[in-house]
Amino acid sequence: MNIFETLESEVRSYCRGWPTTFDKATGSFLYDESGKEYLDFFAGAGSLNYGHNNPLLKRAVIDYMLADGVTHSLDMNTVAKRELLESFEDIVLKPRALDYKVMFPGPAGANAVEAALKLARKVTGRESIINFTNAFHGMTLGALSVTGNSMKRSGAGIPLVHATPMPYDNYFDGQTPDFLFFERLLADSGSGLNEPAAVIVETVQGEGGINAARVEWLRGLAELCQRHGILLIVDDVQMGCGRTGPFFSFEVAGIRPDIVCLSKSIGGYGLPLALTLLKPELDVWEPGEHNGTFRGVNPAFVAATEALKVYWRDDKLEKSTLAKGEQVGRELTGLVESYPDVPMRAKGRGLARGLQFGDARLAGKVCATAFELGLLMETSGPDGEVVKLMPPLTISDDELERGLSVLARSVKGALA
Amino acid sequence: MNIFETLESEVRSYCRGWPTTFDKATGSFLYDESGKEYLDFFAGAGSLNYGHNNPLLKRAVIDYMLADGVTHSLDMNTVAKRELLESFEDIVLKPRALDYKVMFPGPAGANAVEAALKLARKVTGRESIINFTNAFHGMTLGALSVTGNSMKRSGAGIPLVHATPMPYDNYFDGQTPDFLFFERLLADSGSGLNEPAAVIVETVQGEGGINAARVEWLRGLAELCQRHGILLIVDDVQMGCGRTGPFFSFEVAGIRPDIVCLSKSIGGYGLPLALTLLKPELDVWEPGEHNGTFRGVNPAFVAATEALKVYWRDDKLEKSTLAKGEQVGRELTGLVESYPDVPMRAKGRGLARGLQFGDARLAGKVCATAFELGLLMETSGPDGEVVKLMPPLTISDDELERGLSVLARSVKGALA
Amino acid sequence: MNIFETLESEVRSYCRGWPTTFDKATGSFLYDESGKEYLDFFAGAGSLNYGHNNPLLKRAVIDYMLADGVTHSLDMNTVAKRELLESFEDIVLKPRALDYKVMFPGPAGANAVEAALKLARKVTGRESIINFTNAFHGMTLGALSVTGNSMKRSGAGIPLVHATPMPYDNYFDGQTPDFLFFERLLADSGSGLNEPAAVIVETVQGEGGINAARVEWLRGLAELCQRHGILLIVDDVQMGCGRTGPFFSFEVAGIRPDIVCLSKSIGGYGLPLALTLLKPELDVWEPGEHNGTFRGVNPAFVAATEALKVYWRDDKLEKSTLAKGEQVGRELTGLVESYPDVPMRAKGRGLARGLQFGDARLAGKVCATAFELGLLMETSGPDGEVVKLMPPLTISDDELERGLSVLARSVKGALA
Amino acid sequence: MNIFETLESEVRSYCRGWPTTFDKATGSFLYDESGKEYLDFFAGAGSLNYGHNNPLLKRAVIDYMLADGVTHSLDMNTVAKRELLESFEDIVLKPRALDYKVMFPGPAGANAVEAALKLARKVTGRESIINFTNAFHGMTLGALSVTGNSMKRSGAGIPLVHATPMPYDNYFDGQTPDFLFFERLLADSGSGLNEPAAVIVETVQGEGGINAARVEWLRGLAELCQRHGILLIVDDVQMGCGRTGPFFSFEVAGIRPDIVCLSKSIGGYGLPLALTLLKPELDVWEPGEHNGTFRGVNPAFVAATEALKVYWRDDKLEKSTLAKGEQVGRELTGLVESYPDVPMRAKGRGLARGLQFGDARLAGKVCATAFELGLLMETSGPDGEVVKLMPPLTISDDELERGLSVLARSVKGALA
Repeated sequence: MNIFETLESEVRSYCRGWPTTFDKATGSFLYDESGKEYLDFFAGAGSLNYGHNNPLLKRAVIDYMLADGVTHSLDMNTVAKRELLESFEDIVLKPRALDYKVMFPGPAGANAVEAALKLARKVTGRESIINFTNAFHGMTLGALSVTGNSMKRSGAGIPLVHATPMPYDNYFDGQTPDFLFFERLLADSGSGLNEPAAVIVETVQGEGGINAARVEWLRGLAELCQRHGILLIVDDVQMGCGRTGPFFSFEVAGIRPDIVCLSKSIGGYGLPLALTLLKPELDVWEPGEHNGTFRGVNPAFVAATEALKVYWRDDKLEKSTLAKGEQVGRELTGLVESYPDVPMRAKGRGLARGLQFGDARLAGKVCATAFELGLLMETSGPDGEVVKLMPPLTISDDELERGLSVLARSVKGALA
Repeated sequence: MNIFETLESEVRSYCRGWPTTFDKATGSFLYDESGKEYLDFFAGAGSLNYGHNNPLLKRAVIDYMLADGVTHSLDMNTVAKRELLESFEDIVLKPRALDYKVMFPGPAGANAVEAALKLARKVTGRESIINFTNAFHGMTLGALSVTGNSMKRSGAGIPLVHATPMPYDNYFDGQTPDFLFFERLLADSGSGLNEPAAVIVETVQGEGGINAARVEWLRGLAELCQRHGILLIVDDVQMGCGRTGPFFSFEVAGIRPDIVCLSKSIGGYGLPLALTLLKPELDVWEPGEHNGTFRGVNPAFVAATEALKVYWRDDKLEKSTLAKGEQVGRELTGLVESYPDVPMRAKGRGLARGLQFGDARLAGKVCATAFELGLLMETSGPDGEVVKLMPPLTISDDELERGLSVLARSVKGALA
Repeated sequence: MNIFETLESEVRSYCRGWPTTFDKATGSFLYDESGKEYLDFFAGAGSLNYGHNNPLLKRAVIDYMLADGVTHSLDMNTVAKRELLESFEDIVLKPRALDYKVMFPGPAGANAVEAALKLARKVTGRESIINFTNAFHGMTLGALSVTGNSMKRSGAGIPLVHATPMPYDNYFDGQTPDFLFFERLLADSGSGLNEPAAVIVETVQGEGGINAARVEWLRGLAELCQRHGILLIVDDVQMGCGRTGPFFSFEVAGIRPDIVCLSKSIGGYGLPLALTLLKPELDVWEPGEHNGTFRGVNPAFVAATEALKVYWRDDKLEKSTLAKGEQVGRELTGLVESYPDVPMRAKGRGLARGLQFGDARLAGKVCATAFELGLLMETSGPDGEVVKLMPPLTISDDELERGLSVLARSVKGALA
Repeated sequence: MNIFETLESEVRSYCRGWPTTFDKATGSFLYDESGKEYLDFFAGAGSLNYGHNNPLLKRAVIDYMLADGVTHSLDMNTVAKRELLESFEDIVLKPRALDYKVMFPGPAGANAVEAALKLARKVTGRESIINFTNAFHGMTLGALSVTGNSMKRSGAGIPLVHATPMPYDNYFDGQTPDFLFFERLLADSGSGLNEPAAVIVETVQGEGGINAARVEWLRGLAELCQRHGILLIVDDVQMGCGRTGPFFSFEVAGIRPDIVCLSKSIGGYGLPLALTLLKPELDVWEPGEHNGTFRGVNPAFVAATEALKVYWRDDKLEKSTLAKGEQVGRELTGLVESYPDVPMRAKGRGLARGLQFGDARLAGKVCATAFELGLLMETSGPDGEVVKLMPPLTISDDELERGLSVLARSVKGALA
């Protein structure tokens, strides 16, 4: 037994599916300590949209460290933070005519969600939250209470309350009108639904199985929220920062959420960083009412600023992501069509793609085979029935094709 | 108005007390963008025990990055993680004959606390937690529910339940026996106290006002927990990693908590890292039952490993911390005695020290004056009545004396 | 101002709609202190199925009191209780081949519900309950948490949690399959629905607007519960004791709930009495684990026993209720057809009938007019849009016709 | 096995300690079906302060029924209710210069408590309640959450939250100042105590073991509540209606609670009735915001009115209760002194008296022996360590002496 098995808690999981020890990583590749190369269609669960050890970001971070830039600053003002704020305003918010204030809620996506839920409750004076089936928002108690996965929920050890799940887009395969249940419960003063402070939604559910909500559903949701005075929180932790094409995943629907959660790739380099964006009129926080030690990770500020400047001053990355996404989509559709007898389904948007199997074991087999063949992909969905494809956005065409080819071989192998 | 005021949320707080913009930092000093030097008696709220941009740690991190070491790995096995686990076992656990399993609960102290609470509930099948007056454990919902500060609690927007506060050591100035209330409630089957899963405690309450529990109180608490089958969680996020002298703050009491929370300085360099340590028999987690994106921040693993190797292979740092702590303690006692008419009190252990004022405004004035004079200290305590002194453990004698001299001037100025 | 206005709390409500002071009552009639006669289509909200001061029941109660029978006995054994238990077993349970144990949970329907919820949670080790839109189960905290009405819910002053409302039968006017949402959430381990201990349902929702679930829906619900290991609680407080024809309202569906709540007319004479019936295998209570002062109201036992003996030894009352119910139904349908331009709808089963108006003000007007004309009816439904007809089951044909004629006049008047 | 054992739920409890079947009852006596006479020192747990089948009350109730007075009226105005309100105002409130509005919350004490808690939360906008160690307030979810007994609490099946227990008077045998812990937690904004809406207290804890709070403690509590803007709820369900001498048990302390709960003997005859009294400025209920079917039990109104007129128009009953209480107290003290080697303690006030044993089994033995000898007494206290003496207030001197003599014999027997 190695030290991971003897010393680390049983809670560890990725290391079980990928039984090797990784050492180096560049661009779209990871290397284990034996030197074996793995093409990465996982990208740190969306934290490495710009690839591993992206040289431009690495240079910026190392230069900052060499110059003895402040590393850790809580919410003190620093030069690095100012540059991030300025870049975020100039490159992200202004061009999209988005008027948000920026909160640093802590280092991780769950902190962004916790802050969003707190704020929504504080602003509205209501306590109840609407979440969606198969949502994933994090493991801290507030975030977990709006997460769907029953195994993770049971880890709480206390009843998770104050949230009511509503059916996500297409939950009933189109046999009911959108928001039928939600609208009816809201309209009916005898429904027993506690009046919600907010709705929290992912535009594409990553952990939930790469379920991409239609833009008209997202628009309908935003409209419903506005009509009922419910705040709309978009959790863009995994799908933001260009994963689906545009910087924010909700841009495609033309909606303006009241609160937006960002993390994962916002730091660019895989360093922990999270932002909660809020409409100015919602900024009713008392100073220090929400705080935390790791809100000022300046190397992450530096990498984030550099990533914005390199990748978001023009629309090249967005267009390339959309194009590559289309390519992946076509490949997946092709696979589905190649095996007419096997229940499969191609899913997703941008470079968040999934191949869903009727039999969850097949999805697991595909990923295991791919790992053998040097391709990292994880499963998602409530039963692990979806092979999830999330390569770095910076992946080259050759790498992408190579990965898709391994995927095809893995599917073939799994179905053999 | 600068961009911090226009774009950042009103929730920001440290930047209000220290109204400048910091740029560089080395060792015990921060520098603002005008070049003004600030001696740091704050140390990132305990995250920078080894000083800013510690050259040994910096070198290790930069070398790792230059070599394209894996940056972000969730809970995959990596070489950097193995080295951290091995170092932690060899340098920290084995010499202290501590038998813990190590869990990576997420990047921040609150994650360590959330995981500890979940696990305690899962293991015992009970939901209630005992916390202490003036406790601080974090801002995510689970951690907030065991935190005392009423302003921060009210930020939750929902009733915070499942925790009952007990009086911390010396809460009644010695007029009652230790654990009088707690023991009586536990012994009385009609008391109305829900049977607790766990007690969560800080050995020295940092945010609560540098309240140092006596070792006999800590021993009494551990003994009480064992007698009643209640798990004992020590939140060593701020007071661990040598802040009070020994690596774990509870060592001085000779107790063995069931679960230990570490963060802040465990990463050494100010990068987010947290650990939850648990007795092996408590390791009942399902794989993936608690997860999170930023559990594998390898640069932090590298810095953590280096910090352990440099500072904890012998007892030099521990001894120096104790000696410097004594020195600070003497200085504070001297200050108290210098102003017999002003209600003041010297508090703390190791290099976690406090000067408590009867009038909280005076504490605020002292810190404001110190800032003008180039010394960073924050207030703590429920009303901000305590000037909190937490210099880096690596501070030199000269720097320490300089800081204490500025403190003395600041007190004099505030009392003038 | 009279003493009701000066001394009684503003919470009073029936006295506002029926602004007089009642004095005497017999059979189907109430009389106010001026001697004005009111035909009672309300029947104590279902507590007076056998009419006011039913002479047979009155005789039994008075004889018992005159003989100095024990009045108040908590859960001591008494002769009167034995007779009730024996009668209940012989007349109610055995002929229906129902195998239940009988619990005396306290004097009112809410106590029966509170005990049922406690027991379901204790037996299953789960905490969550499924209730239905527009459910009404009572005003104590546990019962209120499964009640739909938002005004009443807001009276709790704390968030009402641990219950999730599902759509009642026909909630979407037949446009979705039965249990579409419920089944899907249960089947999906990622749905976010906490695993339910029990479902609580009324077969006909009285307060909710005389919504009668179809028998196939009830059967589907029972089957769903069995399939998923969820306990089925039928709250038969208002619809039991023959209101819809058979003794238990669920008999028509041929289902066997795990737990049944009875109250209102079980005492027969309007005296407080409630029963919780539970399958023998669920009887895991510790002695005294649920208790209460008014569990032994012996005059109510006596009246209950007499009512069972008089009315339930044969099927006369059941048949007559069904026949009269049909008559009322026809009358209501006729009214609906008479006013093709006014959105109206006839609802209900047995002698629980309702006339729903598209415009809730009309329902209020109908009841107000009827009161003027000497007929007592209340409104129900979330907006008070349903005129509710619940005459005593012992009403004579003449009285029923007289009442229906007043109803017709009242509708005409309201629509004028 | 008899039908109680075969058909009634295992939850039954009094019938286990008193294994016979009661039939008749008059004054201070119960008779089982074999004709055996039992002197009643239990009095329906305080519901039969005026004795069994009190002839004056019986006459009034029977006359009312014979005249076909309305039995069941929800919260409609009735003549019987008017007479109760007028009598309550004239005989109870006015002479004591108490200005309360009267609410009919449902038939039982728990309803009075549920309504009080709801109202306190609604008025203050806070959710947290302070209860006391060994409190008993009822079995419905809200009332249970402020009850101390752990066995009964565990029956809830969900975590009972929103209440924090404080030490009742003399909980630490006088070794700490009154309210030391409570005051300190309230004063300390970092204590972690949720700001309370209300305190709920019994002046003498009946179920908790006949713990009589000193009047100065009650005054201190009332003063503390006023100072902190916390509502004071006195649960006088068991100790009101003259049990301790005066009509309200709190009169002796000269305090004016914000809300008072009455039930048990308010109905006089053992019929279910409860009242919640509230200061007029707290009467913020919406009409119907709290309701319930059995709020208008007119026979209970009639008996209540008669009891007020017969027993509370002068101070004879109050004086006699105090005198008899003194007599019982002397007897108990004498018993304690007779057995200097057996840890025993005499407790109580008025005719709520207790004899506490160091060894709870002795208390059980005393009650069992007394039952054999024809005297009904129950145990109370968290471990059943207190023999509880609560005879009817109308008990004659001879009966009282006879009972005390049986008690003495039972103690002797138990200690033999």
